[in-house]
Amino acid sequence: MARWAPDAQGRLQIAAMELYGEHGYEATTVAEIAERAGLTERTFFRYFEDKREVLFSGGAALQEYLVAHVDAAPPSASPLEAIVDALCSASDDIFEDRRDGARLRQAVIAANSELQERELIKLAALASALADALRRRGVGDPAASIAAEAGVAIFRIAFDDWVRDTVDPTLAGRIRDSVDELRRVTGERGPVARSRA
Amino acid sequence: MARWAPDAQGRLQIAAMELYGEHGYEATTVAEIAERAGLTERTFFRYFEDKREVLFSGGAALQEYLVAHVDAAPPSASPLEAIVDALCSASDDIFEDRRDGARLRQAVIAANSELQERELIKLAALASALADALRRRGVGDPAASIAAEAGVAIFRIAFDDWVRDTVDPTLAGRIRDSVDELRRVTGERGPVARSRA
Repeated sequence: MARWAPDAQGRLQIAAMELYGEHGYEATTVAEIAERAGLTERTFFRYFEDKREVLFSGGAALQEYLVAHVDAAPPSASPLEAIVDALCSASDDIFEDRRDGARLRQAVIAANSELQERELIKLAALASALADALRRRGVGDPAASIAAEAGVAIFRIAFDDWVRDTVDPTLAGRIRDSVDELRRVTGERGPVARSRA
Repeated sequence: MARWAPDAQGRLQIAAMELYGEHGYEATTVAEIAERAGLTERTFFRYFEDKREVLFSGGAALQEYLVAHVDAAPPSASPLEAIVDALCSASDDIFEDRRDGARLRQAVIAANSELQERELIKLAALASALADALRRRGVGDPAASIAAEAGVAIFRIAFDDWVRDTVDPTLAGRIRDSVDELRRVTGERGPVARSRA
């Protein structure tokens, strides 16, 4: 709990994540989450529409953050750089202190196909919002879609590695490594595949 | 109907797609699909588990086709080339004669969020199967995931353009253009974004 904000919303999130991990997402009730957090159900519903929302409420804030950062990127940034810089800032500002919480969340989602679908929908919406932000910077199509989709794919891959691991490097570091890897993968032609084994 | 196989399965697919387009996916029944195809409900259930399956039954065959092509790619092909060559072969062998059907299907899915989620899940599973195929070729991580995710993202973007358009170029041509665009996007650094407007 120490690494998460100790406000009511944060306590509800931690309590929910703990209970989802202990008893499963489906078996957990809002009443139990509120009780574990030392709060009332009424307080729960002040912050979250339902127990699923506890897992996804951060998504809207993340999307807003990333879009604002792409909008504010210097004109000199290439489309992919604008996306990647935004993702790295979010990693440092939002995620880096919350690896334990992120790992719990990831495990809960991995165990439930309905939640996985929800996560994929949210990520698709995020890629679409980031492509729109690039278009506002004057980036054409399909470059805008491609840069946004590539950025979100990299984020997902880096995020999965980061929650699976318990030590360094940071999420931002992993994102930058993955971008380098994407550059290698797209630049590579001919007999390079095997040497990578 | 001329461009689709005129067997029972193909007739059921066309009938379903027409009815989904005319009355909406949710309002259409299996009985209506069978009737439109001039077949019995019993015949419908010989080919499809339910009316949703009509939209997604091709996915398993596509995945098998792509994985087989990646497995069979020459050792000299880079990870991304192996994926892209497989996608372009599938475009020519499976999709090119079926643009009308693909457009109908896309419209039905776009109108229903449950179907969209299903489509995203299938595409995520496809990317995962392609990454596994690359690993069998000796490609390491995260290169395997990144090449597979990039390939599937490109396929989706190219496919969307292709069904939206009614004329040339071919799907395979669009995929190759999108790969070139990905190469530009990843290679680009600094003040290039604006010039793309």
